[in-house]
Amino acid sequence: MDFGAVLEAMWPDLKRVEDRLLEETTLEYPLVGDILRGLIGAGGKRLRPLLVLLAARPFNYDLERLIPAAAGIELLHTASLIHDDSIDHAELRRGQPTLNSVLPPEIVIMVGDYMFARSAMLAASTMNPRVLAVFANCLGSICDGQLREIFAARRTDISLDDYQRRIYGKTASLFAGSAEIGAILGGASDAEIDALRRYGGHLGMAFQIVDDVLDLRESTDHIGKPAGHDLRQGTVTLPTMLFLQNRLGDAGSLALVEQVLTDSTPGDHEVTAAVLAIRHSGALEQALDMARQYVDQAREALCEIPAGEARDMLEAVAKYAVQRHF
Amino acid sequence: MDFGAVLEAMWPDLKRVEDRLLEETTLEYPLVGDILRGLIGAGGKRLRPLLVLLAARPFNYDLERLIPAAAGIELLHTASLIHDDSIDHAELRRGQPTLNSVLPPEIVIMVGDYMFARSAMLAASTMNPRVLAVFANCLGSICDGQLREIFAARRTDISLDDYQRRIYGKTASLFAGSAEIGAILGGASDAEIDALRRYGGHLGMAFQIVDDVLDLRESTDHIGKPAGHDLRQGTVTLPTMLFLQNRLGDAGSLALVEQVLTDSTPGDHEVTAAVLAIRHSGALEQALDMARQYVDQAREALCEIPAGEARDMLEAVAKYAVQRHF
Repeated sequence: MDFGAVLEAMWPDLKRVEDRLLEETTLEYPLVGDILRGLIGAGGKRLRPLLVLLAARPFNYDLERLIPAAAGIELLHTASLIHDDSIDHAELRRGQPTLNSVLPPEIVIMVGDYMFARSAMLAASTMNPRVLAVFANCLGSICDGQLREIFAARRTDISLDDYQRRIYGKTASLFAGSAEIGAILGGASDAEIDALRRYGGHLGMAFQIVDDVLDLRESTDHIGKPAGHDLRQGTVTLPTMLFLQNRLGDAGSLALVEQVLTDSTPGDHEVTAAVLAIRHSGALEQALDMARQYVDQAREALCEIPAGEARDMLEAVAKYAVQRHF
Repeated sequence: MDFGAVLEAMWPDLKRVEDRLLEETTLEYPLVGDILRGLIGAGGKRLRPLLVLLAARPFNYDLERLIPAAAGIELLHTASLIHDDSIDHAELRRGQPTLNSVLPPEIVIMVGDYMFARSAMLAASTMNPRVLAVFANCLGSICDGQLREIFAARRTDISLDDYQRRIYGKTASLFAGSAEIGAILGGASDAEIDALRRYGGHLGMAFQIVDDVLDLRESTDHIGKPAGHDLRQGTVTLPTMLFLQNRLGDAGSLALVEQVLTDSTPGDHEVTAAVLAIRHSGALEQALDMARQYVDQAREALCEIPAGEARDMLEAVAKYAVQRHF
């Protein structure tokens, strides 16, 4: 089974989540509702709600209970993107103008907070205290990851451990939480909940590494946000770290990449040259190898849950994480 | 019984909440923990945690369950102050430098988010879904109030209804939620929970009106934040609204106040003159009359809960709301 087949099979259920999400964009403040509808309507891959649904599917699959949880998780993700884009001064997200490119920062902060609140209300509507604890912990982990990224900016000396902790917080924690919440709501055993949580966490690590690779490998048009963004922000991601630590370029290109990372306003030509130096160094392939190892760990964790169509779908999602091009 | 006696009686329990709050400031990011400890350590009146405790006290008063809820409510309030100060570019809060006066905005946004997450974790640790639903709704209401304030800025034509909805969201909703959460955790009946929720809401309305009066009546040193702040921000509060709508000044001072409100960078002299015009117009007394009506409604709501020491304390808190000077 491939990822396309998973999406096709799950589409009717995901559509219900989508409808629930769009309900949350009905706000009476000028402009805000329209832009949120743009952001939410433009999609994204909906991997997190998909994980919530799939993690429940081998067990008691009660869609009415799963929909608010899945919508809540996606809205939490959306809220964190709103603050993230505001912090990065990003202008595009999913090919659409960001809130912060259209509205003043004070409104963007509050709309992000409001979306956190709405996501928490959705999670609370499950009336399951364990789900809510996971949810609150996810928000904490995301902020922790973001703070680590901010404090690590323009530093070229960060370690693999720093990077792993940062992307676990920023991305993998919500993947882990999504799968865990689905499993809890499905009434899985503690061992199965733990296995699905680990599956989600490894998947999320792979997913973020691939995202970091795509930022260096693909064009702006292709990924719906400016390429080379991480380098420009002074954020050392795995490929860049491998490039620098394993000295995968000549002295000139190593110095160039260091300079782009530490310069607070690097020029466009320098950023492009640094991207190309890393792209042709073999660093992207080394990073993808590490992503594949995480996918293998994710697939191993699946051994603990019952074989069947749902497990096959979770496998297909894991494979997709490293094969995707946007 | 007066408010001092309430604080004295409740101090050992409030101290436990205080200790729990300080635990939440242990963060490993540079500077952040120290500033948060400053902000939380500087106090504030701790009215919201006090309400959580007092609302449970006529019923089953289980301090171990109440402490995380009370600390969670105060931390939610603190998180919203962090974002609020960041939006207002405020430099002082509780007489201490604000986070945003010391750290860049991206860190302040994330620390605020992180405090929201920690507050949600505390609320989640009560393992009571109804408490969490109230909690999530409070966060939503606070954001709603803030957005209303932002969108109403520099507009002199707002109505009493606009003002009431804004301060309900910004302030009264969390007072209502604090009392409601205490009552829920105390195992009160639905009618008693509803009565305490109404008590908290009316008290919160009175409290915010008094806050808005103090901003025009007291000196910067006295209230721990710059006086005349609302006028400078272009925010029409109740006294200013009464001054303008009831034409409580001569043509010159009415025009001056309108000008200060609509000017995006009013001069210090103009702000001071506008403050004095409102202060001496009788508008503050008219606003305080409305606050007293809310206190009366809060006290009426208390009729529905059992008489006794706890109810006397809640009465004393209500009376204090309009007598306080900072």
